Amino acid sequence: MELYVERGFDETTVAEIAKRAGLTERTFFRHFADKREVLFAGAAMLQDLFVAAVVDAPSDLAPVDTAMAGVVAGGALIGERPAFSRQRYEIIAANAELQERELIKLASLSAALAGALRRRGVPDHGASLAAEVAIAVFKIAFERWVSDPVHLDLVQLMRASLDELRTVTADSETGRPAATRP
Amino acid sequence: MELYVERGFDETTVAEIAKRAGLTERTFFRHFADKREVLFAGAAMLQDLFVAAVVDAPSDLAPVDTAMAGVVAGGALIGERPAFSRQRYEIIAANAELQERELIKLASLSAALAGALRRRGVPDHGASLAAEVAIAVFKIAFERWVSDPVHLDLVQLMRASLDELRTVTADSETGRPAATRP
Repeated sequence: MELYVERGFDETTVAEIAKRAGLTERTFFRHFADKREVLFAGAAMLQDLFVAAVVDAPSDLAPVDTAMAGVVAGGALIGERPAFSRQRYEIIAANAELQERELIKLASLSAALAGALRRRGVPDHGASLAAEVAIAVFKIAFERWVSDPVHLDLVQLMRASLDELRTVTADSETGRPAATRP
Repeated sequence: MELYVERGFDETTVAEIAKRAGLTERTFFRHFADKREVLFAGAAMLQDLFVAAVVDAPSDLAPVDTAMAGVVAGGALIGERPAFSRQRYEIIAANAELQERELIKLASLSAALAGALRRRGVPDHGASLAAEVAIAVFKIAFERWVSDPVHLDLVQLMRASLDELRTVTADSETGRPAATRP
């Protein structure tokens, strides 16, 4: 990934990546379908983490809090690798094709979360909505965090973003934020 | 678009589309960058509609309701063309590359909505969250509607999805749905 930063994603060849990592090209292709996958190899693990955390969440949690348990588990892992995450983010931000793949991976994560919620008995559309909300919180908290990943706390930002989301979805007629507590 | 349904998106050439529409290929390319753009040409108009409705929304609306005014304006237009929308949806659902482009267009719509909210004074992250929520409602309501666009009402489904979203984002600790009214 250092190479992507040094030379740009488009200018880096698989041969160079393999050499830097001390691998043959053949070994590289045993692990990654193409050079983009170096950046997205973590998505499957993230998805497993999301789903496992939803399965393990307390049964009395509201749907969005259950979905949030999934993305928070992912956030905790991402938060452990600030330098990597920052680099990866910058590489993706500089390349339209990579941004598209990132969107696709986020859509898959959302679908996986919704599936896990449905298996816990959350009704169909409610599950999709809760998953979309959690992914939006994940995305926006990540974008805040990655501006200064060494000093900010990703999981804290996720919780703050969810609170903020409850405020912005407050009903206009009552003006009462959803997160108001007695 | 009929051709995409008849023969599949991949098998249809620009020459065939132009012929069916009574255009030369040259005229076709004056209007569309490529054959995919036939399906996405409406996105710019949709975006303008979203933004205009946000600008015109009453100033006392909550951020999500303001964003919803945008997507509801779009929904009203889409709802007028059930047969077209259904066909377009089926073509896209059958093709991974088109699904990706659809995700990208939705991300652009979300960014445009968030920008319009910020210009109304909604704080930065709150604007992004409200826009993401409205787009999630738009997407999920559209998927419900397109299963039977002749009998269902897209705008009604959007409002129902927003209510459902307020229910799923209800705070676990109070158990009170956000949309509960006095």
